[in-house]
Amino acid sequence: MASEFELIAALRRRLSATGPTVLLGPGDDAALIQPPPGQGQVLSTDTLVADRHFPAGLAPALLAWRSLAVNLSDLAAMGAEPGPLLIALTAPDLTPAWIDGFCEGVLACLAAHAPSATLVGGNLARGPLQVSVTVTGWVLPAQALLRSGAKVGDRIFVSGVLGAGLAGREALDASGLAPAELALSAVSPAFAPYLTPEPRVGLGLALRGKATACIDISDGLAAELGHLADASGVGMRLDSEAVPREGTLEAALTGGDDYELLFTLPPAEATAEKLAALAAKGGVAIQEIGLCEAEAGLRGLPPLGGQAGWDHFSQP
Amino acid sequence: MASEFELIAALRRRLSATGPTVLLGPGDDAALIQPPPGQGQVLSTDTLVADRHFPAGLAPALLAWRSLAVNLSDLAAMGAEPGPLLIALTAPDLTPAWIDGFCEGVLACLAAHAPSATLVGGNLARGPLQVSVTVTGWVLPAQALLRSGAKVGDRIFVSGVLGAGLAGREALDASGLAPAELALSAVSPAFAPYLTPEPRVGLGLALRGKATACIDISDGLAAELGHLADASGVGMRLDSEAVPREGTLEAALTGGDDYELLFTLPPAEATAEKLAALAAKGGVAIQEIGLCEAEAGLRGLPPLGGQAGWDHFSQP
Repeated sequence: MASEFELIAALRRRLSATGPTVLLGPGDDAALIQPPPGQGQVLSTDTLVADRHFPAGLAPALLAWRSLAVNLSDLAAMGAEPGPLLIALTAPDLTPAWIDGFCEGVLACLAAHAPSATLVGGNLARGPLQVSVTVTGWVLPAQALLRSGAKVGDRIFVSGVLGAGLAGREALDASGLAPAELALSAVSPAFAPYLTPEPRVGLGLALRGKATACIDISDGLAAELGHLADASGVGMRLDSEAVPREGTLEAALTGGDDYELLFTLPPAEATAEKLAALAAKGGVAIQEIGLCEAEAGLRGLPPLGGQAGWDHFSQP
Repeated sequence: MASEFELIAALRRRLSATGPTVLLGPGDDAALIQPPPGQGQVLSTDTLVADRHFPAGLAPALLAWRSLAVNLSDLAAMGAEPGPLLIALTAPDLTPAWIDGFCEGVLACLAAHAPSATLVGGNLARGPLQVSVTVTGWVLPAQALLRSGAKVGDRIFVSGVLGAGLAGREALDASGLAPAELALSAVSPAFAPYLTPEPRVGLGLALRGKATACIDISDGLAAELGHLADASGVGMRLDSEAVPREGTLEAALTGGDDYELLFTLPPAEATAEKLAALAAKGGVAIQEIGLCEAEAGLRGLPPLGGQAGWDHFSQP
């Protein structure tokens, strides 16, 4: 088996780049960066566990894409420009071919969604297969998209198509294809929403200074509506007929694995012309799905059988 | 079993604080901080895997201490003042009592070594027991302690006592005590170097503007000497008799688990008076152990049977 030092050297050769903010990349006790003057820094970390968040045998390029995409989605939800990031990978065994595949996925996802991001460090250890990514990004503090700014009368929007992640996962399961045999360069459109989720970084940037609240939909629309409403101190009425979806309404509301943005706009920012400009800048369709109201609570949702959102620790 | 939301809420109540740089702590899609003007930011991440880096049944307070300490040690090695940090925890099962213990360890380690640090985010998921911590810290870029600045004629120093981590681990193994029964508030001095390593944050701060190179000794002195020498482009002669140690010389050179600082000082910074001031500021003894020389390579080390440093992936 390759040594840790050889594997780390291979990762560095493939992945390290210097950017305007990076004074020192991987190779010392820590990285050193120079924050852009005046910018706030957004920080988030998310872990993917084998056989919970991805099939243990998943092709490494697809695992890498997913690990980055779900983290970049959190930056998108804050309206942040992606910056330095770190990857902590544990695996029971690693081969140069696996590392090559993992690097391919990292590079592809960054090229597609975060060309400004730079890998500045990480950790590699033997253990059960897991990937923890820590992302950082930049935004003027006053322009950061929080969950807490929605006002009564604001209109509620969502990007993309909900339930598509779940539909992709079910299609993949039904196909009988081995997750290890899948190639990042040839993902079927039927599986793509699940295998290669697209973090809405461009839309997040476009929403700065416009959206009053924003969140990414990692846990299903119903749960995220609740988070936005609670944090903002408003009620929300969903027009469930308007939700752009693939599959059942329940899948769209609770399916998870979608990584779209849910956000609120004041009426002045929700003209047809401005919405078209947002969709064009963000590179994704956006759809109005509801309204912020004074009366607390969520309205317009069908009964969901207690499945309103994914809870990593209460699931059996 | 407690839900993720309940556990996260408990963690937040216990751990979250706001600091001068924290605009938004846990609870949104990401944290938001305001970097101090002019400061460079140091970033590092390190993962601890159950039954590789700690006994799976270890009391949660001690696991938390260790997870933070090994990460703070990387900040110390850069001369950085600890700042915002994130904790990604996966566990097969979690109880409120376990979370309480984990919080106790986090709070104790931060209070002792990094009162300026703030938990700004993290991740909690069901999976094999692992902790990935990402630390950030602040240092003027020109004062950051790198591995690469040692010059011919610089003198080589180490803090603390090497081999103590290994001796503590062996004493614990021999005691027959169950790792789950150990209490952070009553760690025997015989086990303390292993169970509650002390990151040398204060010494790292004291070395800013003085040390020409610095590294922390996570992998054993022999390996770290090699890293410093390679990065700096100098040779190093070790006076192995001078190495402050507990146990055999081989344990001191390759034992790991010590988390002391290894650093170089130019002769003008290595007067008895200045060394005494450094030790006082750093709160730990420092000892001269060698000299940087022009001829490449390491000298003065005994044969080590190929065990010069811990390699996470080449170990069986």
